[in-house]
Amino acid sequence: MIYLDNNATTIMYEEVFNVLKKYSIDVYANPNSIHEFGVKAEIALEEARFKIAKLMGVMPYEIYFTSGATESINWAIKGSVLSKQNIGKHIISSKVEHSSTINTLSYLEKQGFEIEYVKTDNYGKIDLEDLKNKIRQDTVLVTLMVANNELGTLNPIKKVYKIIKEKNEKTLFHLDAVQAIGKIDFRLKDFKCDMASFSAHKFHGPKGIGFLYKKDTALIHPLITGGSQERSQRGGTQNVASIVAMAKALEISFEDLPKMENIKNMRDNLAEQMEKLGAKIVTPLDNSTPNTLSAFFEGLRGDVIVNALSDEEIYISTSAACSSKGTSGSRVLKELGYSSKASEGMVRISLSALTTADEVQRFINILKKVLEFLRF
Amino acid sequence: MIYLDNNATTIMYEEVFNVLKKYSIDVYANPNSIHEFGVKAEIALEEARFKIAKLMGVMPYEIYFTSGATESINWAIKGSVLSKQNIGKHIISSKVEHSSTINTLSYLEKQGFEIEYVKTDNYGKIDLEDLKNKIRQDTVLVTLMVANNELGTLNPIKKVYKIIKEKNEKTLFHLDAVQAIGKIDFRLKDFKCDMASFSAHKFHGPKGIGFLYKKDTALIHPLITGGSQERSQRGGTQNVASIVAMAKALEISFEDLPKMENIKNMRDNLAEQMEKLGAKIVTPLDNSTPNTLSAFFEGLRGDVIVNALSDEEIYISTSAACSSKGTSGSRVLKELGYSSKASEGMVRISLSALTTADEVQRFINILKKVLEFLRF
Repeated sequence: MIYLDNNATTIMYEEVFNVLKKYSIDVYANPNSIHEFGVKAEIALEEARFKIAKLMGVMPYEIYFTSGATESINWAIKGSVLSKQNIGKHIISSKVEHSSTINTLSYLEKQGFEIEYVKTDNYGKIDLEDLKNKIRQDTVLVTLMVANNELGTLNPIKKVYKIIKEKNEKTLFHLDAVQAIGKIDFRLKDFKCDMASFSAHKFHGPKGIGFLYKKDTALIHPLITGGSQERSQRGGTQNVASIVAMAKALEISFEDLPKMENIKNMRDNLAEQMEKLGAKIVTPLDNSTPNTLSAFFEGLRGDVIVNALSDEEIYISTSAACSSKGTSGSRVLKELGYSSKASEGMVRISLSALTTADEVQRFINILKKVLEFLRF
Repeated sequence: MIYLDNNATTIMYEEVFNVLKKYSIDVYANPNSIHEFGVKAEIALEEARFKIAKLMGVMPYEIYFTSGATESINWAIKGSVLSKQNIGKHIISSKVEHSSTINTLSYLEKQGFEIEYVKTDNYGKIDLEDLKNKIRQDTVLVTLMVANNELGTLNPIKKVYKIIKEKNEKTLFHLDAVQAIGKIDFRLKDFKCDMASFSAHKFHGPKGIGFLYKKDTALIHPLITGGSQERSQRGGTQNVASIVAMAKALEISFEDLPKMENIKNMRDNLAEQMEKLGAKIVTPLDNSTPNTLSAFFEGLRGDVIVNALSDEEIYISTSAACSSKGTSGSRVLKELGYSSKASEGMVRISLSALTTADEVQRFINILKKVLEFLRF
């Protein structure tokens, strides 16, 4: 099989699975137990927190373990606006955010919050001037993604924090960093924000685990209350095995970053070859995660292409996995003003540091065959 | 080592780990991807849901996967009361619930909800008459545990649903079933409720995974909004490997239930021997989960005993793991009117279906030695 759907999920690195195994079988204690067996698990847990914090350039006590990015995003958004209701109910985001942001904002809108969406260019990149103009005295939160999951488009995030705080220092800034890790050199010390959400299974870690970075000055409500775990900010027995595995995956992802230059070359070359086959490329090649390529072929449905390739054991995607079922076409492309035909035609190819040139070549050969068959 | 802290967490069954491995490595696709590889993961996911529903005697579409019991409990409680604010703000629970319930209720109290606690006997068993009297027209939720995590005390849950619904059919009933699974024959078809919370790592499954049973008539707000996963009620890529492993663990736990009779004998025998060593047993042996034994030794601190045993690689607990750090003594014993000395003296021994008679005998021998040393 050729797996080119790495924006949906990734295979676990072998070393990551070995860590998962060790802490599932040998050190299975509850890290909150006071006996030595529990302490052993707790040490592993805190070492993982320390490792992640160091890689990110922040403090260990600013890292909170969660069940993944969707929980982190829910926590960051709902926790912020609930804690700041006395200041205001105005939230700023963009229309091309992931559904975990979009649907959380829709939920809050029904509860009486006011959501405004900042303008973007044709690739989904936000307009900084428009963002600046939209920030008000009652703006409690700005939430934006670093990299778009469907197109790969990168936002000019490094400039955002300053723009926000100059207009309103009380406005919190949350980053959805899910699609950035392992693809660009994303460190929190360079990407200033109050909160940021991460998911391990997007960078060759296990599913069901992630973390929220939360600056110690960002006092927000918890989402999941319970025991005193995670400094009483997130209840529930910590999933030690997956947490330690995630820290390992993050470490390897950073080590593998230099490979992304080659992946970008492979992606750019793929774009060129696909254009020759009639594709309209929608990913901005000069401003995107280097692994992502979205395109459409006029007159062909994306899901038909995905299914035809699937028969050949080649796995790509139409749009975001979490909204690809039951809906028609890419929500992001629709938001960007593309026709419904273009949106329904979209296919997304997403490589990883483990993708080989040979796989990409085999993909393009079979794609050619598939297109000839479908265009009959 | 001798591990007798199974109410804190359990070792994974070997077969369960094999399942976890298979779906971590071989079938790692995102179950929401539309290609064949995704469909393979999706089928495993839905088979797991079907298996759990069947074991529980409910419908598959009433099972929602979560990151564990704390999330499930937060969802059930907060989701219920948020969806029923127009009816009322009155919630009934008990003082000996797990901290995930207690602290969620405290949070809601600060938001303007009214919490009332039903009376219990000296073992933490709720008073049905008092419950009946407390239900009002504005009672939106009753939330109770099946089995107490610290003492093992069983509640007369089978009678509660009828009592609630006769007084107010709009009141929702949530069960914290975490400590019941694998210890008593708990099936939802026998324990009627609107919602129930479960955690895999308490029945030899992985940490970080659980489920919420939610009757299709219980329309509550989601806690974690996002993609269309879990019938749009819980966003986030499902943790397929852990879910399939959890279903396997549940299946084996039910198969292992007959072993609990023997475990009860071992526990009762242990209680007798501990009494001879001067212990005051606080677990009601005739009305408790058969694996749990809580007791205190007058004049000795529980944490000192736990630590002394830990040096001998015997692992027991003082009280609940999630609140055993930084606090002094058993919250449950305090709530039940025990002295702070008794509460700080408490030790909890919790067996599992895998505990052997030899382990229990070795435990009692070493406990005898430890007590002699400490009573010097």
